[in-house]
Amino acid sequence: MSDQNTGTKSSNAMWGGRFADGPDALMEAINASIGYDRRLAPQDVEGSRAHAAMLAATGILTDSDAELIREGLLTVLSEIEAGNFAFSTALEDIHMNIEARLKELLGEPAGRLHTARSRNDQVATDFKLWTRDQFDAMDAGLTALMKVFVAQAEAGPDMVMPGFTHLQTAQPVTWGHHMMAYVEMFARDRSRVRDARARMNESPLGAAALAGTGFAIDRHMTAETLGFDRPSANSLDAVSDRDFALEFLTTSSICAMHLSRFAEELVIWASAQFRFVTLSDRFSTGSSIMPQKKNPDAAELLRAKVGRIVGATVALLTVMKGLPLAYSKDMQEDKEQVFDAADSMMLSLAAMTGMVADLRPNAEVLRAAAASGFSTATDLADWLVREANLPFRDAHHATGALVKMAEDRGCDLADLTLEDMQSVNPSITSGVFDVLTVEASVASRISYGGTSPERVREQIARWKEALA
Amino acid sequence: MSDQNTGTKSSNAMWGGRFADGPDALMEAINASIGYDRRLAPQDVEGSRAHAAMLAATGILTDSDAELIREGLLTVLSEIEAGNFAFSTALEDIHMNIEARLKELLGEPAGRLHTARSRNDQVATDFKLWTRDQFDAMDAGLTALMKVFVAQAEAGPDMVMPGFTHLQTAQPVTWGHHMMAYVEMFARDRSRVRDARARMNESPLGAAALAGTGFAIDRHMTAETLGFDRPSANSLDAVSDRDFALEFLTTSSICAMHLSRFAEELVIWASAQFRFVTLSDRFSTGSSIMPQKKNPDAAELLRAKVGRIVGATVALLTVMKGLPLAYSKDMQEDKEQVFDAADSMMLSLAAMTGMVADLRPNAEVLRAAAASGFSTATDLADWLVREANLPFRDAHHATGALVKMAEDRGCDLADLTLEDMQSVNPSITSGVFDVLTVEASVASRISYGGTSPERVREQIARWKEALA
Amino acid sequence: MSDQNTGTKSSNAMWGGRFADGPDALMEAINASIGYDRRLAPQDVEGSRAHAAMLAATGILTDSDAELIREGLLTVLSEIEAGNFAFSTALEDIHMNIEARLKELLGEPAGRLHTARSRNDQVATDFKLWTRDQFDAMDAGLTALMKVFVAQAEAGPDMVMPGFTHLQTAQPVTWGHHMMAYVEMFARDRSRVRDARARMNESPLGAAALAGTGFAIDRHMTAETLGFDRPSANSLDAVSDRDFALEFLTTSSICAMHLSRFAEELVIWASAQFRFVTLSDRFSTGSSIMPQKKNPDAAELLRAKVGRIVGATVALLTVMKGLPLAYSKDMQEDKEQVFDAADSMMLSLAAMTGMVADLRPNAEVLRAAAASGFSTATDLADWLVREANLPFRDAHHATGALVKMAEDRGCDLADLTLEDMQSVNPSITSGVFDVLTVEASVASRISYGGTSPERVREQIARWKEALA
Amino acid sequence: MSDQNTGTKSSNAMWGGRFADGPDALMEAINASIGYDRRLAPQDVEGSRAHAAMLAATGILTDSDAELIREGLLTVLSEIEAGNFAFSTALEDIHMNIEARLKELLGEPAGRLHTARSRNDQVATDFKLWTRDQFDAMDAGLTALMKVFVAQAEAGPDMVMPGFTHLQTAQPVTWGHHMMAYVEMFARDRSRVRDARARMNESPLGAAALAGTGFAIDRHMTAETLGFDRPSANSLDAVSDRDFALEFLTTSSICAMHLSRFAEELVIWASAQFRFVTLSDRFSTGSSIMPQKKNPDAAELLRAKVGRIVGATVALLTVMKGLPLAYSKDMQEDKEQVFDAADSMMLSLAAMTGMVADLRPNAEVLRAAAASGFSTATDLADWLVREANLPFRDAHHATGALVKMAEDRGCDLADLTLEDMQSVNPSITSGVFDVLTVEASVASRISYGGTSPERVREQIARWKEALA
Repeated sequence: MSDQNTGTKSSNAMWGGRFADGPDALMEAINASIGYDRRLAPQDVEGSRAHAAMLAATGILTDSDAELIREGLLTVLSEIEAGNFAFSTALEDIHMNIEARLKELLGEPAGRLHTARSRNDQVATDFKLWTRDQFDAMDAGLTALMKVFVAQAEAGPDMVMPGFTHLQTAQPVTWGHHMMAYVEMFARDRSRVRDARARMNESPLGAAALAGTGFAIDRHMTAETLGFDRPSANSLDAVSDRDFALEFLTTSSICAMHLSRFAEELVIWASAQFRFVTLSDRFSTGSSIMPQKKNPDAAELLRAKVGRIVGATVALLTVMKGLPLAYSKDMQEDKEQVFDAADSMMLSLAAMTGMVADLRPNAEVLRAAAASGFSTATDLADWLVREANLPFRDAHHATGALVKMAEDRGCDLADLTLEDMQSVNPSITSGVFDVLTVEASVASRISYGGTSPERVREQIARWKEALA
Repeated sequence: MSDQNTGTKSSNAMWGGRFADGPDALMEAINASIGYDRRLAPQDVEGSRAHAAMLAATGILTDSDAELIREGLLTVLSEIEAGNFAFSTALEDIHMNIEARLKELLGEPAGRLHTARSRNDQVATDFKLWTRDQFDAMDAGLTALMKVFVAQAEAGPDMVMPGFTHLQTAQPVTWGHHMMAYVEMFARDRSRVRDARARMNESPLGAAALAGTGFAIDRHMTAETLGFDRPSANSLDAVSDRDFALEFLTTSSICAMHLSRFAEELVIWASAQFRFVTLSDRFSTGSSIMPQKKNPDAAELLRAKVGRIVGATVALLTVMKGLPLAYSKDMQEDKEQVFDAADSMMLSLAAMTGMVADLRPNAEVLRAAAASGFSTATDLADWLVREANLPFRDAHHATGALVKMAEDRGCDLADLTLEDMQSVNPSITSGVFDVLTVEASVASRISYGGTSPERVREQIARWKEALA
Repeated sequence: MSDQNTGTKSSNAMWGGRFADGPDALMEAINASIGYDRRLAPQDVEGSRAHAAMLAATGILTDSDAELIREGLLTVLSEIEAGNFAFSTALEDIHMNIEARLKELLGEPAGRLHTARSRNDQVATDFKLWTRDQFDAMDAGLTALMKVFVAQAEAGPDMVMPGFTHLQTAQPVTWGHHMMAYVEMFARDRSRVRDARARMNESPLGAAALAGTGFAIDRHMTAETLGFDRPSANSLDAVSDRDFALEFLTTSSICAMHLSRFAEELVIWASAQFRFVTLSDRFSTGSSIMPQKKNPDAAELLRAKVGRIVGATVALLTVMKGLPLAYSKDMQEDKEQVFDAADSMMLSLAAMTGMVADLRPNAEVLRAAAASGFSTATDLADWLVREANLPFRDAHHATGALVKMAEDRGCDLADLTLEDMQSVNPSITSGVFDVLTVEASVASRISYGGTSPERVREQIARWKEALA
Repeated sequence: MSDQNTGTKSSNAMWGGRFADGPDALMEAINASIGYDRRLAPQDVEGSRAHAAMLAATGILTDSDAELIREGLLTVLSEIEAGNFAFSTALEDIHMNIEARLKELLGEPAGRLHTARSRNDQVATDFKLWTRDQFDAMDAGLTALMKVFVAQAEAGPDMVMPGFTHLQTAQPVTWGHHMMAYVEMFARDRSRVRDARARMNESPLGAAALAGTGFAIDRHMTAETLGFDRPSANSLDAVSDRDFALEFLTTSSICAMHLSRFAEELVIWASAQFRFVTLSDRFSTGSSIMPQKKNPDAAELLRAKVGRIVGATVALLTVMKGLPLAYSKDMQEDKEQVFDAADSMMLSLAAMTGMVADLRPNAEVLRAAAASGFSTATDLADWLVREANLPFRDAHHATGALVKMAEDRGCDLADLTLEDMQSVNPSITSGVFDVLTVEASVASRISYGGTSPERVREQIARWKEALA
């Protein structure tokens, strides 16, 4: 339409220095995926080997051709793994790179591998195999993390610490109880991982470009070979589905959010003002001039990862929005998001596992913090309901009066005399003093799931068995 | 710190006209949730009734008090449902509004209801009950939607249409096959709904503020009464967990993305250029001066909803990021996001169900489009592989030459003579003409999950049985 | 396609209880915007009055018709504002509701108002006018907020507190300096608001449906009447542009993030462990049984709002993704997101302004925290560089040795003797003791933008003048 | 706390195969940024050279030391640029890598460079310089893109095409007008870029760790040397501010959304059903067997990029949420998001520029599509208002009747006779036929910003001058 486009030189000027080579280089830059999808090489070889074996079993390929191809693919993979493979951007992606090399090695038979297959079902298969491995790695990472939280809980089922709401001391709880709360969270994460993994375990291989194929292939055989539960039931869906990638991202987002909560607690607990815990040197960084300073770098980085993973989720959901069936090139944006999120996820789980394993709670500081701020006021109120038969709201009122009295005198609730108590409510007896210590408070919370050492030990035992 | 704050008047000036009443009104505006959490009234009454019954069963409350409370709660609910309830913003939320009204009705016994409970576990229980209902509604909505897609498929298992990649005709497929692709997508959505529903079905009630309680309550009884599978195992986790809300949002996000894909197809298909389908008047809007114009408004709105629901997901994940245990007020932001997403989700499912039920495919247009663009070129290539034993890549090369020949002559592949064919590859026989029609093409795709009418009918039968 | 759709009854069954009235009610539910766009009534009347005046000025309308219309519009608006207006969902939106009422009031002349206009440019104009008001409100809200931060700074330009990195004490800073950091942030927010406001101030009115109009209208006149700088230059762009809404959302997102940072500081500072500040009762909530407890509810809610606003941003960006020109119904999803974000934004700014105005720093606690942890170690190292000419890295090494010595002895750096000092580096003189107090430390940071009271006072003075 | 942590071996087992080297390797993996921040090498050297020159000018460093350092830094940079630099992960980041190498080259004087500076202000300065370059590159890229859109417009200011709403033909517009709509969008993007660039152009250098410094540095000098407008006014803000990165991301998000809209149009327009345009081979990919097929890969990839960039925006906003001042390690997550978004942005702008330059509209197809569907019905209605003085709503009614008549006869509006016309409204004269062709229609839209060739040519001329 304009003479701007007649030559490479003017094009260069138009596109500016960054893309000096003009449109062809630009198209290559935006189109090629070999820069990142080379991570799929093992999956691509595994998928192609299964496909070749099936083609032989169904008589579409000769046994000898299939065997040549299957061996050749192993050779190519070993070249890649040894770092001896010359990746070509002109060949765009890992699939074409491997096929081209196979052709160099085998000649004509290599050209028969792609029978009854298309790049669309091949890509979907490879990416599913890769993502399935990540679900498995996440499962293992979560199990390891749960174990170290259980071990932390076991170190302190009766170690008293403040239970916070609004970061204000509310009631005493136990260290073990707090640690086990995270076990519940990560157990839900693991449950989500397992559900997603089961749901996605259907083989796209054989869906071909989008419509299936006229060759008499056996999709059940390739599905089984590759560890899938069954072939997918609709070829259009098989090549246009990225739910498995999205579910990996949403599951990871919630898990990363959980990690961010404990990371935040670590940062706050490690402050000079809290001193609830000591972080290990291995997950902190120091300062060359302030040797007492220990920055919780790893905790901060873990706190941040949820942003990255939620960002990846938004990215892929936005990419998939409004795409007509079946395959559109937009979907090539799927891999980098999942690769990055998976790397962040696995690194985060491992780093958190290390940090939790090394974490040392400062029992004295925790107990002192728990005992401050009239933290057993609720216990007093509950005693009034239970023993003096006051309605709950009235019991709260009486408790407020006693706390006010103690505050005015600068003492604890336990330092008030029985007479003081009875001046507010005459039905109070000396039995009340049994509930005013933090130890008594936590020991009393024996409802199922409560913070009492007894209940916490039961949960620890339950989880140790489940995680064994 | 400054005299700006000494009086209401200067405060008004400072906060500007929008918040003329100064700090107290401001705090009320930002703090109160009664404007939206009144939707939880039925769940709040249900939870409180279960709690009262349990308190009586465990001897914490007298049977008569419990009965009074349980009846009183029904009275309050009927007032709310009849629109006779005076909600008070000063009472902040639905829970306090109901409790205050109960106190008016019953006097002192009302004050005993809150024994061994806290607003933290109460809110978590109510919100879980509400969200569980939404999972159930979504399950039903997805089932209804799948049924109309199956019905559409059944109307055209052998109706030929173009199968697109990149919105370019790739191969012929069948209308039934295309419809069934969406059944697979929504089946995965429903599977996610069911997994999430099962995972979240643990009762927080009895976790109290955060530590459990010293009253000898029976959490298993309330869990059972409320239809939960079990009580949650850790009280800190029970009051600080919002995974169920997040999983509702992530599951809805993926489902809404699926809806956006079909909505996009409807918008494109309804264009004057495509004319693949006729939308019903009921889900379109017209123009007073262009009676032939039919705007696909409903489809466009459904295409947009994914944005809204993904936005809600991002909102709640961001809110939860980095919150220390147990309860923080930030979490009050959870409900509006889930309420809005659930409303959008259910409305979208119902509207799409209506649109799909009313949709009429234009069979002639679809077939003509499928037959254009040498859409059976792949079939020709596959024939060369299968019948003439050419390697796949060579067969592709020969096919390209024949398409080029047809294009130059302005004819279809089927219009070439056998001599033409043999000039490119001498091994071609007259049998090739059997695969060059679109009907032959789709009929040949008999691999499992393929587009052939035979395979599509099997899938329809399978799903009709599953959905019956 | 199926008899499921032949009657209302079966439809009801299909769509389930939630949408009992079948497709028509469904379409109305998904299509109508009157439930929320009634907020645009003042803008709609303002825009229509300007349009009518212009139609008269250009001779398209008679003066008397225009005057009738302009008066009638005021009548309609006063009905709406008085709460006497019967909104109709069947009329879909605020624009049709107003026009229909005008017709009732005026008869035939009302039908002339829509000459040379379309709902597309009308909606864009109304929504722009509304959003422009929000930019102005945000500008005012930010100015008020900056003023209270400056007032806080003025109360403590030399009040020493710890400067944190990683929530670990790094160096002493001044309260005034910390407060002024937020003034800089909110100044950038306000700058963004002003840039966006200027950029969006072009009038879409007269773009008509999408192509402009053949009537000899004067778009410059309506633009000027409505306070726009000019008419927009391309009618297709005018009706399909929602940049102004997106820029309101992105600007608000960054501002809300700033608010979340100070909110987080308030929550941490108000903890029993930090006790850096006392929040006013007006922005906290208490506990009926723990009167000493003061929950920072407002701060927590403000911390959460960034989630909500970022969610709205994601929602609208996702909605706009991939929409072809010019108007698509998807864009109707724009308003609720901006309405909600604007409400959250203005409420957040006002609430933060109130909280900051009421905030009381605990000077003694802040100073003590600043003085702990060898916070002047950097000052010692800098002294060695400056006075003893050590290279920076060597100075750091010597400082580390001295901090270690003090730590081992359980004393402060200032408690070491000159001999102790010289044992590590002989060039140290008694002058070093001048830099080891926190007051000396902050006083020394006189570089431009530094924390010294002198520099802070200059910044306070600069901003007081700028904000006057 | 448990013997799992006593040795490297058991640690290995705990963290699994992916992180075989245990906690130290883990910490290095999560902490080191050298893998990506090496891109900041030129900025780091530029910043350090400016700092050294200032230290000499203020007498803090000797001239000879400063000169040594400044030369040494150039040597290091040339090693990096030549690929001869051995990056060390143990040295964590680019700043320490460069400093360590400088020390190797120069010995002791290298240690003086870091005087009156900290890594916090150094990182902020480097990252700002890098981001500023991206704003400049985006400005240039947008200008180039606007130029090719203007060139496209110039090729067809009177080429008629359908103007769509809801992807339904609404009114005829001109190709030039449609192209110029995008010029307006990208002009707003460029305006945002320029505002953001001006706002962020303040130098953090000299803010030191967080409090400023006691050295008598000249921050105005380094600011000027580095092209900043001024030093930042608050040192706490200077090291904790990432607004510039966020504003780059939000600005890019909106721009990428604009690109996605035209990309969507290209995909639809290139379909066999639309055939509105022909894409150049250079930005499409073909099929080896369907030579007529041309997949709009580049357009699809550009459509997807908005997801990636919005994802990055969400990521960084989430990371920054709730971070207390001043520096937290979470902020290290900033760079990868901005790097990735900037690369996507610049590549997208360049690729779109190439595609638009190469784009060929199919004038005949466009005109035929514009003429179908009674697209001039609005013109007829407007004629009735203008010439026959009908109220707008009545004119619409009459037009509807005439369109119905034409539709029933299977003819166009222009094919009706004057008698036909007058049977609907007797005041119609033969003059009406002047407005019923698409050429007459577009020619009539002469309102400012309208689609008439006259108006479009004015806009083209205005922009050619502005972009010259």
